[in-house]
Amino acid sequence: MRAITEADLDDLATGSWILGAGGGGQPYYSLLEMKALYRAGRRVALMDPLALADDALVACVGQMGAPLVIQEKLTDANVMAETVRMMERHLGRRFDAIMLWEVGGNNCFQPFLAGALLDLPVVDCDAMGRAFPQADMTTFAICDLPAHPWTMVDIRRNRILFAEAVDWSWMERMTRRACAVFGSVAATCKAPRSGREVKTASCLHTVTKALGIGAAVREARRAHRDPIDALIAREGGRRLFRGKVSDAMRRTTEGFLRGHLAIDGLDENRGQAMTLDFQNEFIVGRIDGAVRVTAPDLICVMDSVSGEAIGTETVRYGQRVTVVALPAPPILLSEKGLKHVGPRAFGYDLDFRSVFDARAD
Amino acid sequence: MRAITEADLDDLATGSWILGAGGGGQPYYSLLEMKALYRAGRRVALMDPLALADDALVACVGQMGAPLVIQEKLTDANVMAETVRMMERHLGRRFDAIMLWEVGGNNCFQPFLAGALLDLPVVDCDAMGRAFPQADMTTFAICDLPAHPWTMVDIRRNRILFAEAVDWSWMERMTRRACAVFGSVAATCKAPRSGREVKTASCLHTVTKALGIGAAVREARRAHRDPIDALIAREGGRRLFRGKVSDAMRRTTEGFLRGHLAIDGLDENRGQAMTLDFQNEFIVGRIDGAVRVTAPDLICVMDSVSGEAIGTETVRYGQRVTVVALPAPPILLSEKGLKHVGPRAFGYDLDFRSVFDARAD
Repeated sequence: MRAITEADLDDLATGSWILGAGGGGQPYYSLLEMKALYRAGRRVALMDPLALADDALVACVGQMGAPLVIQEKLTDANVMAETVRMMERHLGRRFDAIMLWEVGGNNCFQPFLAGALLDLPVVDCDAMGRAFPQADMTTFAICDLPAHPWTMVDIRRNRILFAEAVDWSWMERMTRRACAVFGSVAATCKAPRSGREVKTASCLHTVTKALGIGAAVREARRAHRDPIDALIAREGGRRLFRGKVSDAMRRTTEGFLRGHLAIDGLDENRGQAMTLDFQNEFIVGRIDGAVRVTAPDLICVMDSVSGEAIGTETVRYGQRVTVVALPAPPILLSEKGLKHVGPRAFGYDLDFRSVFDARAD
Repeated sequence: MRAITEADLDDLATGSWILGAGGGGQPYYSLLEMKALYRAGRRVALMDPLALADDALVACVGQMGAPLVIQEKLTDANVMAETVRMMERHLGRRFDAIMLWEVGGNNCFQPFLAGALLDLPVVDCDAMGRAFPQADMTTFAICDLPAHPWTMVDIRRNRILFAEAVDWSWMERMTRRACAVFGSVAATCKAPRSGREVKTASCLHTVTKALGIGAAVREARRAHRDPIDALIAREGGRRLFRGKVSDAMRRTTEGFLRGHLAIDGLDENRGQAMTLDFQNEFIVGRIDGAVRVTAPDLICVMDSVSGEAIGTETVRYGQRVTVVALPAPPILLSEKGLKHVGPRAFGYDLDFRSVFDARAD
């Protein structure tokens, strides 16, 4: 167990927002709420997943919906905690710990918010190693673990239990429509996992990774070094493009935030243009019309000076941005993994070729 | 208790299909399944609601969705029974009886199908006294009884428990979207009711009414009398129009069957034209452009010769039809009732004026 300090929370916000690859939701409001809980005396411990008993019962929580809406319709820790309580009532059993659905963005904070109220430790792992828009894009789906049951709660206290789903694709469809009815945002407790499942089918130690990224960016800023260089050095990332946002088109549709970003090149990219398609997260990046990068590589758009991540819901015309690719967890790059999270899973007729593939460039 | 015989089933199909007012779904396939269950030795008893103990627990079941789809995607008694079993597991209590969500059409048979498998008596009442497309159009909604919990099951065994809803309108929205995901048809067990609630907030003895209508039509056919005359005489109905269907436009949208019917007048209506708008059920009827009849009056379209009801999903170009109005149960005509089931509840800027209002004509 490691105690998470209030200073850690700031690093976590910075790091998780970068790992969100544009999605997961801006963590700012959840960071504020988390700090308020800390000031009220609540504390959350971070637990090594490898210390879980095989038969431990782990809750897996996250917000679902369109990141733009999550900014507009604030929720709070009680709503998230209620999804866990509802699941406990359904199972007739208490949880031993709580884990992240996705380490990216605001969703990194959801288990900490619920954990603070429910007095449960948060497990140092997640089911994506980044953020993705759909339920069938998790390591649990890739490993073919059961998709049900889920609980879903909205701020009005509408409450739904998805007791059984044929597969992850059906669970995604059912929950996405329900989420859209709620106004494109809902708190969810996904299918409970055993300690054994968590240890064998999640992305391990990703909270520690987010904390480390946040600390590296903070350190670089303090020393007046380039925080993006620090990120790239730490994570083995690659700088893809530098420029100014010339257009941002987005629409909230079917429970997602979908859209398109255009960036005019600056500095070494002057005269070039990059475009990015997104569905909550940045999915496909093209430079001068040629595909340069696709999911599951993490496509991170960052403020060129501060190194702060910019999400698909916060990106604006005129921002000076740097586009960075970070390597995806290996499980996402497996043949089965790419079926769930490769470009074709998002409807693109493209084979995946990683920016980090030795044959690339 | 009254034993329902195999001959009763035929009368029930005829009568319920008329009371469906175009909706509730054609009962033909459920009638066949019910007869198959009877031939396999199953029997269902009909129970007087007034014999229910105040604290008896009553399940309330029905298919939800677009009638056209219900014809295309057959389901069976097991799926409906599973909604009841799922509710029992959630409540931790067994049901004492089962009742009809709506007496109209195929939905009249659903509690009999489930009751045959679960060995539960069917209560002689329903929550609409006809068929209506939405959950917030029931006597239970009009009486402001709780809308939750609901269970919903599809043929693939996706299973959802709607544990809590702010109100009937939210329950309708949530369940309708889920139903649309399932392909616009789903089996549901609605909010359980106490015996006291059933006795005070449902339409009583409507199964007996459907049986009586079916018997009257059967008798008239046997005696070569006009079955529509027999219906009108028995139920205090009114013949509104006779003609030939000149156009039927329908689309399955948002979990409903919506559309429009045009009828060219024949006989006493020669030279006139009637149009009917429908949302699962016939909602507004106009003759030569002037509104003649609206819900909650029952607008029944029937084969002019056989007196067989015709549903919004089965009506076709060229059919010789007679449009009949039947009086609605008094609770639907109350001020509160009309808020739920009057023309404005369907989006029409019309005040309700009953065909049976003494001031009419």
